[in-house]
Amino acid sequence: MALVNENYLKLPGSYLFSEIARRVNQFKKDNPAADIIRLGIGDVTQPLSPAVVEAMKNAVEEMGRQETFRGYGPEQGYEFLIEKIIENDFKPLKVELSVDEVFISDGAKSDTANFQELFGINNKLAVSDPVYPVYVDSNVMSGRTGTINTTGQFENIVYLPCIEENGMKPPLPGTKVDMIYLCFPNNPTGMTLSKEELKKWVDYARENRSVILFDAAYEAYIQEEGVPHSIFEIEGAREVAVEFRSFSKTAGFTGTRCAYTIVPKEVKVYDSNGKAYSLNNLWLRRQTTKFNGVSYPVQAAAAAVFSKEGKKQVKQLVKYYMENAGIIRAGLQSAGYKVFGGINAPYIWLKTPNNMKSWDFFDKLMQEANVVGTPGAGFGASGEGYFRLTAFGTRENTERAVERIKNRM
Amino acid sequence: MALVNENYLKLPGSYLFSEIARRVNQFKKDNPAADIIRLGIGDVTQPLSPAVVEAMKNAVEEMGRQETFRGYGPEQGYEFLIEKIIENDFKPLKVELSVDEVFISDGAKSDTANFQELFGINNKLAVSDPVYPVYVDSNVMSGRTGTINTTGQFENIVYLPCIEENGMKPPLPGTKVDMIYLCFPNNPTGMTLSKEELKKWVDYARENRSVILFDAAYEAYIQEEGVPHSIFEIEGAREVAVEFRSFSKTAGFTGTRCAYTIVPKEVKVYDSNGKAYSLNNLWLRRQTTKFNGVSYPVQAAAAAVFSKEGKKQVKQLVKYYMENAGIIRAGLQSAGYKVFGGINAPYIWLKTPNNMKSWDFFDKLMQEANVVGTPGAGFGASGEGYFRLTAFGTRENTERAVERIKNRM
Repeated sequence: MALVNENYLKLPGSYLFSEIARRVNQFKKDNPAADIIRLGIGDVTQPLSPAVVEAMKNAVEEMGRQETFRGYGPEQGYEFLIEKIIENDFKPLKVELSVDEVFISDGAKSDTANFQELFGINNKLAVSDPVYPVYVDSNVMSGRTGTINTTGQFENIVYLPCIEENGMKPPLPGTKVDMIYLCFPNNPTGMTLSKEELKKWVDYARENRSVILFDAAYEAYIQEEGVPHSIFEIEGAREVAVEFRSFSKTAGFTGTRCAYTIVPKEVKVYDSNGKAYSLNNLWLRRQTTKFNGVSYPVQAAAAAVFSKEGKKQVKQLVKYYMENAGIIRAGLQSAGYKVFGGINAPYIWLKTPNNMKSWDFFDKLMQEANVVGTPGAGFGASGEGYFRLTAFGTRENTERAVERIKNRM
Repeated sequence: MALVNENYLKLPGSYLFSEIARRVNQFKKDNPAADIIRLGIGDVTQPLSPAVVEAMKNAVEEMGRQETFRGYGPEQGYEFLIEKIIENDFKPLKVELSVDEVFISDGAKSDTANFQELFGINNKLAVSDPVYPVYVDSNVMSGRTGTINTTGQFENIVYLPCIEENGMKPPLPGTKVDMIYLCFPNNPTGMTLSKEELKKWVDYARENRSVILFDAAYEAYIQEEGVPHSIFEIEGAREVAVEFRSFSKTAGFTGTRCAYTIVPKEVKVYDSNGKAYSLNNLWLRRQTTKFNGVSYPVQAAAAAVFSKEGKKQVKQLVKYYMENAGIIRAGLQSAGYKVFGGINAPYIWLKTPNNMKSWDFFDKLMQEANVVGTPGAGFGASGEGYFRLTAFGTRENTERAVERIKNRM
């Protein structure tokens, strides 16, 4: 008799974005004339840049000619793309990487979800609260978290509350943890850490031989000086950190699918005898066994993000969304809301008025302003009483949404 | 202290294709003038078909325009592609599927490797021997197999020998198994099962509440009548089988990346109390949590495989490779080799002369004919004394390789 992976049964029934979709669909059914503006899911709205489109079309044509056709590529990605990533994303930060420390994939969601496979199931993990649900759910599926309690938290996860009182900065864990998920600029709060604040985490990990799983998917949105773009800007991070990056939000690749993960050769995990193993080798083995590389035209498109024209065009995309962020921030503040984020990140995290529950605010915003956002409680217990809006809408919709929030709420 | 997943340490050191690459590189270093022909790795050589290229370019252009841009698609794939798959690949076989039973992915390698996650680690699994290494390795990584013995077999896997004596047809397991990997047309032997033979497996699975993981990546190569293209042609299979398919070999997508997996709603796995769970729901949960869908232009390209022109062009591709298969088969037979496969599959499986060891034959073939193939022993203990050649080379190289085998060996 085929047995189920019983860890799957520990997952809470409804995934955040499915529940949002359900409520929106119901509302649309009841109010067919309502003109709904979606600032909920973090999906981009601006088209791929011309340099990217051109490069991808050329690569597709290459695939149609015998002499330039490409079959299986390297599972870990083409060097032409890896070299451009190192040159453009890391050299300017004075971070040295070798070609075999960069792994190209189809998405940061896949990588952040799959990476935990390399770790034993008895590791203790820490996550920020609120948190991107994929970190938690992928660990639940693997059996690393135990069961869920009545507040929606898993027994073997250390939750690090990020709330107004601590400026949305996760406190170091009180008990020892082995795997630490950090995301900065943060989804959902939109907040960042300074180099000094991030260094505390690197020091903690070095001291405890923990591994930091650092999600930098939003680094391109950093506007202020002094905010680290990569954890590898911090001394010692090469020994204890892995970094996830993506073209999704940087270059509008949410529907095109390309990301990359940095696994320095020094990062180690240990067996029960204390013998060390390189995570880089383990991830290579995982990817060569369970993955067959990213589509060649997609990798060619990603490489064009680093061309002279590509860089200019992509910068414009980021600027466009960050102007949206500024409009939302200013609008909400002038309407009396307390807001976080939106300065170095495309997310605005607002405190609901009068301690309203997140889902109540969701319903109110949808019903009164016909604007859809994301309830903070969906990201964890400490997200209760907060609400996320994204800057990824069109300019027109962003402005209209802000006007409605000011006038109708 | 971060602990390693110790199951990874049970994997044998060197992956088959890495060892081949190592030997070929050494040979090239020692013999820089040698003109090597590769009929080893199952990678295609013919370019994407014009209809596919055209559709993919159009989709890339859509991604470059505001009004047609697409962000995140459904994790399980676009309906426009799923509907074409059902209509073209299954309706003619009288197999009825609903849209939510088809899951689009980036490759059959990913799907066959990831699908085992849905099962508890105490399931017993059976594989053919020889076997595509991904089925075994992904289960080793999850901790389902125990350790490896001196013959290279894992203690908790039931190996089903496919040898000359049984016509390369796996015998039903002697002990009860819960997960059964079958691949037909087979990689590496190139052999098939009849409907009656496959029905025995479906009956076995129904009787034992096992699940059959059926890899049909090569079904497009079936030339003979009476050979099932899908396991769902067999009565009762919807209750016990999942089927993996791919555009890689059908339409030359090895570097473009698109595949699909059929998970009927009736297929069940059980908890320790015997309560049943739908694999379809579990796979949906897995994919929505750990995957973000296939690139839109790639899905558009895959859909073009089913257009009127696309179907014609793709048929020509298959015909081209199957003519190669015929050339290899006939050439080897006329040179006195005993050969299997190559009639309904792009793989030719030959018995080495005088019971030569597979790796010895590999070295001899490389040294004397400068032809690279794949040693049967690399696919499992029962592959010892066999050797795989693929029909995916160019016509010219295929003909030259056969001439050399005839004249130099």
